Amino acid sequence: MQNLSDNNSKIKELSKLNMSKFRKELKMFIVEGKHLVDEARKSNILIDAYSIEEKDGYIKISESAMKKICHTDTVVSEIGVCKLIEKNELSDKLLILDAIQDPGNLGSLMRSAKAFGFNTIILGNGTCDIYNDKVIRSSQGAIFKLNFINANLKEFIPTLKDYLVYGTNVRKGISVSDCKKNKKLALVLGNEGNGISDSVDSVIENNIYIPLDNTESLNVTVAGSILMYELRDNK
Amino acid sequence: MQNLSDNNSKIKELSKLNMSKFRKELKMFIVEGKHLVDEARKSNILIDAYSIEEKDGYIKISESAMKKICHTDTVVSEIGVCKLIEKNELSDKLLILDAIQDPGNLGSLMRSAKAFGFNTIILGNGTCDIYNDKVIRSSQGAIFKLNFINANLKEFIPTLKDYLVYGTNVRKGISVSDCKKNKKLALVLGNEGNGISDSVDSVIENNIYIPLDNTESLNVTVAGSILMYELRDNK
Repeated sequence: MQNLSDNNSKIKELSKLNMSKFRKELKMFIVEGKHLVDEARKSNILIDAYSIEEKDGYIKISESAMKKICHTDTVVSEIGVCKLIEKNELSDKLLILDAIQDPGNLGSLMRSAKAFGFNTIILGNGTCDIYNDKVIRSSQGAIFKLNFINANLKEFIPTLKDYLVYGTNVRKGISVSDCKKNKKLALVLGNEGNGISDSVDSVIENNIYIPLDNTESLNVTVAGSILMYELRDNK
Repeated sequence: MQNLSDNNSKIKELSKLNMSKFRKELKMFIVEGKHLVDEARKSNILIDAYSIEEKDGYIKISESAMKKICHTDTVVSEIGVCKLIEKNELSDKLLILDAIQDPGNLGSLMRSAKAFGFNTIILGNGTCDIYNDKVIRSSQGAIFKLNFINANLKEFIPTLKDYLVYGTNVRKGISVSDCKKNKKLALVLGNEGNGISDSVDSVIENNIYIPLDNTESLNVTVAGSILMYELRDNK
């Protein structure tokens, strides 16, 4: 049973993980709550777990130390410190994100990607940091089971020689119900407000859309999820 | 060109619309930003529009009056005051919500419901207030084109005699790809954490689910949207 005081250098280090820069430098990130700590443990990426109560498998810390680490006013009971793992392998189905900005959208898209077998996510410039606490919460643990690659999409997409790449530019393209499927397939989603940027659009040959009755539009998480659902292997 | 001072009784009245209780009492609600004001105007529910700048179709108010109305630290440039309209008609497709709590989920579900022709939303007890500013923002104007009915679901669902009612209890039911479709159809979604409550579940005969590869789950907005997409008329 370890017990850490508030001014311990470990606590100071952990409190820096609130910032994207230090997460990248230290190759670590924090998850909050028992559910996510358990999921991280199962995925073998948990380095340490901390709790404000004495508890098996957790290092006890004070409430004030916990607040310092989490930068919150409310008290989180359990946190886990996780290894940030980067692999360069590509799965058969890829989800490519061009500047998705809302953490809730990014986390929910991770859940859908995992559910429909899009096991690698390519993060284009301007995409929200995946280790943001809201992203992790919305992903409900899917984040631990996916592979992420940061890339300049204008350069990356043309390297996908044996993949069928679909953009989601609604002004061109064909209905998802009529489109060709492929084992190796990549789906590109654009920014919430502006869609796919012109420079990325210029390297995408084929686009698909969801047929809608009217002039309505869908939230990007919903649109992306319906497309992954339609393009998944066992459809 | 009207010009309202900060202490005008109108400003005081509008600042109360931040609270659900007063929205219900006054049968009015506020939308923020030019896009939503325009949408409200098109939908004929706009009572008045206010701007911090002199602008056609807007009543000018000061920045401090605007902050008072919006209860925000950042300044919103334009707002609209809208009529809260309640109709009891049912559309052929119904979306029934049993205690959906997240405003972003509720707003995005409205967008999907409108896009797939589920034009009436039944709000069960415990569902987030639809005139919450985050709900309105996420709905992107879909909120103005839908019909909402508040109901006790345990009593309401059995009155839907000519509707095919589908619950989303994942422990029972059949895959959405195998289920019967119907012109008059209702889809019931449950709470983010707990799903459909036992009392509502007890009055639902048929349940459907989305076939997933693995043990993953989907965000309720995503799941509900895929199901509405599959159950829509022109599928």
